[in-house]
Amino acid sequence: MTPPSSTPLQGAVSIALGDFSVVRSQSLALSDHLSDADATVQSMEDASPVKWHLAHTTWFFETFVLAPNVPDYTLFDENYGYLFNSYYDAVGERHPRPARGMLARPPLEDVRAYRAHVDAAMERLLAGKVDKELAALIELGLHHEQQHQELLLTDVLHLFAQNPLRPAYAPAVPLEMKSQSSGAPRWISFEGGQISIGARGEGFAFDCEGPAHEVLVRPFDLASRAVTNREWIQFMDAGGYEDPQYWLSDGFALASERAWKAPLYWYAQDDAWWSLTLRGPQPVHLDAPVSHVSFYEADAYATWAGARLPTESEWEHAAADRVPEGNFASSDMLRPRPQVGEDGSLCGLFGDVWEWTASPFTSYPGFKPAAGAVGEYNGKFMSGQMVLRGGSCVTAGGHMRATYRNFFHPDKRWQFSGLRLAKDAS
Amino acid sequence: MTPPSSTPLQGAVSIALGDFSVVRSQSLALSDHLSDADATVQSMEDASPVKWHLAHTTWFFETFVLAPNVPDYTLFDENYGYLFNSYYDAVGERHPRPARGMLARPPLEDVRAYRAHVDAAMERLLAGKVDKELAALIELGLHHEQQHQELLLTDVLHLFAQNPLRPAYAPAVPLEMKSQSSGAPRWISFEGGQISIGARGEGFAFDCEGPAHEVLVRPFDLASRAVTNREWIQFMDAGGYEDPQYWLSDGFALASERAWKAPLYWYAQDDAWWSLTLRGPQPVHLDAPVSHVSFYEADAYATWAGARLPTESEWEHAAADRVPEGNFASSDMLRPRPQVGEDGSLCGLFGDVWEWTASPFTSYPGFKPAAGAVGEYNGKFMSGQMVLRGGSCVTAGGHMRATYRNFFHPDKRWQFSGLRLAKDAS
Amino acid sequence: MTPPSSTPLQGAVSIALGDFSVVRSQSLALSDHLSDADATVQSMEDASPVKWHLAHTTWFFETFVLAPNVPDYTLFDENYGYLFNSYYDAVGERHPRPARGMLARPPLEDVRAYRAHVDAAMERLLAGKVDKELAALIELGLHHEQQHQELLLTDVLHLFAQNPLRPAYAPAVPLEMKSQSSGAPRWISFEGGQISIGARGEGFAFDCEGPAHEVLVRPFDLASRAVTNREWIQFMDAGGYEDPQYWLSDGFALASERAWKAPLYWYAQDDAWWSLTLRGPQPVHLDAPVSHVSFYEADAYATWAGARLPTESEWEHAAADRVPEGNFASSDMLRPRPQVGEDGSLCGLFGDVWEWTASPFTSYPGFKPAAGAVGEYNGKFMSGQMVLRGGSCVTAGGHMRATYRNFFHPDKRWQFSGLRLAKDAS
Amino acid sequence: MTPPSSTPLQGAVSIALGDFSVVRSQSLALSDHLSDADATVQSMEDASPVKWHLAHTTWFFETFVLAPNVPDYTLFDENYGYLFNSYYDAVGERHPRPARGMLARPPLEDVRAYRAHVDAAMERLLAGKVDKELAALIELGLHHEQQHQELLLTDVLHLFAQNPLRPAYAPAVPLEMKSQSSGAPRWISFEGGQISIGARGEGFAFDCEGPAHEVLVRPFDLASRAVTNREWIQFMDAGGYEDPQYWLSDGFALASERAWKAPLYWYAQDDAWWSLTLRGPQPVHLDAPVSHVSFYEADAYATWAGARLPTESEWEHAAADRVPEGNFASSDMLRPRPQVGEDGSLCGLFGDVWEWTASPFTSYPGFKPAAGAVGEYNGKFMSGQMVLRGGSCVTAGGHMRATYRNFFHPDKRWQFSGLRLAKDAS
Repeated sequence: MTPPSSTPLQGAVSIALGDFSVVRSQSLALSDHLSDADATVQSMEDASPVKWHLAHTTWFFETFVLAPNVPDYTLFDENYGYLFNSYYDAVGERHPRPARGMLARPPLEDVRAYRAHVDAAMERLLAGKVDKELAALIELGLHHEQQHQELLLTDVLHLFAQNPLRPAYAPAVPLEMKSQSSGAPRWISFEGGQISIGARGEGFAFDCEGPAHEVLVRPFDLASRAVTNREWIQFMDAGGYEDPQYWLSDGFALASERAWKAPLYWYAQDDAWWSLTLRGPQPVHLDAPVSHVSFYEADAYATWAGARLPTESEWEHAAADRVPEGNFASSDMLRPRPQVGEDGSLCGLFGDVWEWTASPFTSYPGFKPAAGAVGEYNGKFMSGQMVLRGGSCVTAGGHMRATYRNFFHPDKRWQFSGLRLAKDAS
Repeated sequence: MTPPSSTPLQGAVSIALGDFSVVRSQSLALSDHLSDADATVQSMEDASPVKWHLAHTTWFFETFVLAPNVPDYTLFDENYGYLFNSYYDAVGERHPRPARGMLARPPLEDVRAYRAHVDAAMERLLAGKVDKELAALIELGLHHEQQHQELLLTDVLHLFAQNPLRPAYAPAVPLEMKSQSSGAPRWISFEGGQISIGARGEGFAFDCEGPAHEVLVRPFDLASRAVTNREWIQFMDAGGYEDPQYWLSDGFALASERAWKAPLYWYAQDDAWWSLTLRGPQPVHLDAPVSHVSFYEADAYATWAGARLPTESEWEHAAADRVPEGNFASSDMLRPRPQVGEDGSLCGLFGDVWEWTASPFTSYPGFKPAAGAVGEYNGKFMSGQMVLRGGSCVTAGGHMRATYRNFFHPDKRWQFSGLRLAKDAS
Repeated sequence: MTPPSSTPLQGAVSIALGDFSVVRSQSLALSDHLSDADATVQSMEDASPVKWHLAHTTWFFETFVLAPNVPDYTLFDENYGYLFNSYYDAVGERHPRPARGMLARPPLEDVRAYRAHVDAAMERLLAGKVDKELAALIELGLHHEQQHQELLLTDVLHLFAQNPLRPAYAPAVPLEMKSQSSGAPRWISFEGGQISIGARGEGFAFDCEGPAHEVLVRPFDLASRAVTNREWIQFMDAGGYEDPQYWLSDGFALASERAWKAPLYWYAQDDAWWSLTLRGPQPVHLDAPVSHVSFYEADAYATWAGARLPTESEWEHAAADRVPEGNFASSDMLRPRPQVGEDGSLCGLFGDVWEWTASPFTSYPGFKPAAGAVGEYNGKFMSGQMVLRGGSCVTAGGHMRATYRNFFHPDKRWQFSGLRLAKDAS
Repeated sequence: MTPPSSTPLQGAVSIALGDFSVVRSQSLALSDHLSDADATVQSMEDASPVKWHLAHTTWFFETFVLAPNVPDYTLFDENYGYLFNSYYDAVGERHPRPARGMLARPPLEDVRAYRAHVDAAMERLLAGKVDKELAALIELGLHHEQQHQELLLTDVLHLFAQNPLRPAYAPAVPLEMKSQSSGAPRWISFEGGQISIGARGEGFAFDCEGPAHEVLVRPFDLASRAVTNREWIQFMDAGGYEDPQYWLSDGFALASERAWKAPLYWYAQDDAWWSLTLRGPQPVHLDAPVSHVSFYEADAYATWAGARLPTESEWEHAAADRVPEGNFASSDMLRPRPQVGEDGSLCGLFGDVWEWTASPFTSYPGFKPAAGAVGEYNGKFMSGQMVLRGGSCVTAGGHMRATYRNFFHPDKRWQFSGLRLAKDAS
């Protein structure tokens, strides 16, 4: 088994053939040690099979780039348009999402052949001249693929966690236990004021990251690091899961109905907390950020702690001058790192856990979806979901930026999602 | 059958005995022509029986005002605390919401006796001196009761609409058909800028209406009136309900699953649209505002119309200098009035339909729930719901104000909910 | 409050006016102390509101007897045909069963007026000559009404059991505690052989009770009395509800899912078992037959006890020469009586609890449903239900006979259903 | 792809090593052209993955034969006991049935190694002396495995039928269209009387096939062949699926809810009916027996046709002197054959479709489950299911006999289930 490695896409306006190959081959690398069966099963409606991720990202290039732009392009298989469309109503009927796991066929090797077929056609296309609009579409396709790389990993973890055999996606590697970081986080103060948030058109951004616009932010403090497992256990031990006063009403009802008592994937063994991870069962690292908690849990924790979640504007303002630290090969880790942040700066903004914010996912002022099918990208999901910021240990390296808006429903737990506390300036 | 009349509470800081009596007797008036059976049935989980509304609003005064403040107060019935608590976790266990309709007992006459018992004790209390804090609590109780007066009416309409006999709550009165207002609405322009929204502490406001704070609003236009039934039928005839391009993804899934094809309560008869109303079956008035549409439908309509819903900040800014027009006895109407608005001003902001906004219901910056049980009032519902502004034809007259934030889940249709279009300034 | 009394219909081939009045007035007597609200609520899909029972039994006479046979008969209300049809597909559309509880209107007084209107027309009809076929139909209608009298009582009990106020249908009367009957039941032996079962056409019988036919029955023993509450508690204390070895697979799955730990309506208080009854909360009488258990529980108990349930042929054979003891006014009791049976005979076959048998409800050889709508009577329910024999403390006196086949799904518990053990002859 | 062949187990009292190998290798043959993914997916709760069938039948021998009887036997994998127990409560906890499809691991090759491990140990055991009791247990295991061979095929068909690619399990082979058999079936008369049914202990039988006992059967006629697709289409064209008068109440409710309009796997294409089969999409053969219909549909058809389903006693009586015609390699066909039966005899009793009977699956008089875990075999399923008789085109050849009682819930359609008409003798 070869643990996957991460080489991020360089944030390029025009697409180099090399960038294309890097991203596309990374998807294959993430799945090259999985079996056809591993790649076929759908563990829940929210998750998709690995095979489906590999095919759907390919379908994107075939449907939006090759078919309309390469005159002699031949579809690999006429059925794939139906099978591997995710949610684009404008391009026709599609296989129902909850039935993605029924597709024992096509086998994984056919999906790989599909990828090769499309990649070859794309390489021929990219070898010629590509106009700006098409280049933008291809770049969108690559970022779209990076999103699915993360989903592929979160979905594999969810699948393996259903299996009593507790299979590991990657070899177990011990995580060093640093105990020096077990103190409380510091509060970093921000003055607020009229600030600008949103993508300004430098480098790639998804449609929902713009338009850039001014907002008023009041003075606030942000914790120097994410909430850790150690702190989360204190919340559990204090009866946090059972006390409705800390919870949103919908959240407490759900937590009770589903009998949540700890983050997803945790289990108690021999008087200690363990967690199912991509590297198999592991003892919970007390100084690592808590992960696999829902918005409802994150919000309850914050209330219990006498704080609150930051708004997405606050988060972006705080992170605005932080550059994700190059190619830190997060997916080589596959789990959140212990938080240090000793020098008064913000620690772990990118590459450990996505951080739930207090902000529902809505459109920025002036937002207009793009015309055509790709316009269905983000706008139609602006209902009932909450924004997460930052990036996780399974986010592709070049896919993290201060303006990025990830979003999930408030009850979802299978992403690498944690939280960082905020509070009004005192 | 006596149609109920409306005499609103004078917006008072301190509570006069008269105000108390007015509000309390209005609840009785709303139900005095209903039978015990009418007042007992729960037509769906979202709705409550009339009897329950009458008892729960009484329980509020008994639990939060009388029991802690009147030394010799005797509970009317020890079981009522369990039966008529709505959602206050801090005051103990409660009867489950979906089972409110199981309470054939106590009979309506017992609930009326409960009201008399509590009102007598309250009158004795109010005859003496009441400190400021207690006065505020009593005022909260009265506004709480006015909320339930509206819910009582929307819930009765829902109940009667389930009945093939199509009973009417009040006598049918023809609604004049004015045809002069059938033209397009005008766009009223607003400059935007840094504005203040939220309650400033003058007059009563619910906790979630504050703190007042500054926001940035970009220049925008707001339609001079709400969307009418005539316009909604155009949307229907244009296939609006069947075309996913106009819809949020969750909304289209729901609309398909529930086979929505028209507003709630509408039905076709003899080539015309009719609607079940509190005054029985009525032909749909083409110039009246559309009502009983969900947020999802409102949002889809706005997209279809090339516009959008206003944010709650925009709405409040536009309405800020409008005073709801005194005691216009909205509940004497029990249905939205035809929209006129001929003179370039905004029409129908208050008293016809609640207007869905584009804003999820979240806390204003600096919001802190009150301490104790009454602090459970609004904050714990700040998840998954959308803000509506204005007020409807069944809202108690004195209960409408520019800062008021009503909120419901985006799929709810049984309130008198419509919409007004907005767009970015061109 | 007047406790209802029972005067059974004399088993007559032709219908006397007196018989008609007796049965019809008994239905009114059963409900005359209930309120409109009591009579309106539907506590679960299996149950119907009292008002619905009163109206549906009346609809039977209006639809099948008056409308086709009385030329100038005027329908009481044209809507009632839709509202009060139960399941007769041949006579048109009907109000959906789960929505019977939405009918706050018509009020109970209208339903009583409906009864009076139909009864008056029926009395005029009966004052003249009635042919044999019509007489049979009227007799069917009266037995149908007696079925609904029992359902009315079981449904009221279920409704009141949902209410934390624990209302009583009838006044509490202590039940004498006889301890002499606490010993084991005796086994009564039967030789078996080729026997005849089924109704022979003497006196009224429902279609499914015939044709009479021969069956082979092997020698068997039947317990002299029903299983008592004392014995049931032994089963509970022995862990019977938790041990799958005693249970049918479907039964154990259901019992686990629904967390069954005792018969329906039982609750523990002060170290004793209590039960909600038509006479309010009562201590469980140890020597009375256990009631409100499902077939699954009855079957598990029998397996645990090293016995089995009797087949319906065995039961009918054993009861064949027993005549229900006249008019013992069972409904004056409203609860199972302590079992005595000291003299070696079978005790409590009729009038305490319905006894689950091992027999699925299927057609007898040669069974043909009647032509027309009344042919929908029993045949279409011959799937998935189990036969019960005997009669309960809320069965109308004249409604019990050895050939009577009651039937319910194996998970139902809200009837007065218990069991009597059988075993193969040793 | 090698189409599987069928060599049935010789009906032996003692188990020869050869018999063991034949049955065990046949299971492998049925799956040797399936991929790991094909063998992993669970298409619905009723079905199990191929891999699970292969492992569970192996677990039977490991758990009940090897572990208790071979002192030095080493479990292949300690986790498999949990993973591959089906429903035996007596041997401990088990993986939940609906989650069988989550087991991407162990891979199919591990399951094959498990089979080899157990087979080797079994062969060592069988090479020595095996006492009568153990021999009976092994024989039970082989018949159990043959049951799962059929389920494996029905479950694969169901899985492939969910796939828009319409994969075939075996190569398509045209089925000859004989038109001479399109006439009505003849009625074969039987005198009835006191007859014996049930297994008499000659040759293997499952527990529920006994004890043999006498029953009374009235004179009846049985159709010379099963109902054909041609006849079923007449039922469909006559509106049979839409008319409640032919249906059991539960059946019509289900058929409406699930929108049944034709047998499972049928679809209309180019004005003809096609069906998804193990040999891929095929035109519906008009003279072949209808298959993949539920009991509810079969019963409705019989009522529509003015006939009824036979009881299981009638069926067994009619089939009693029929010997399934040797090793006719049914699974080489994988689909029902056109029905001929020209000479007045009963045709197609064995090897085409299972035939629904009118009999609920209950115990025969005197039935006692075996002691211990294997006693959980059939008795605990005697609730809510209907008996089918005969055997289908995917039943292992030696697995068919006149006394065999197959059983499924009345709404199940994914087995090869059809019907044969019966009627009372005129």
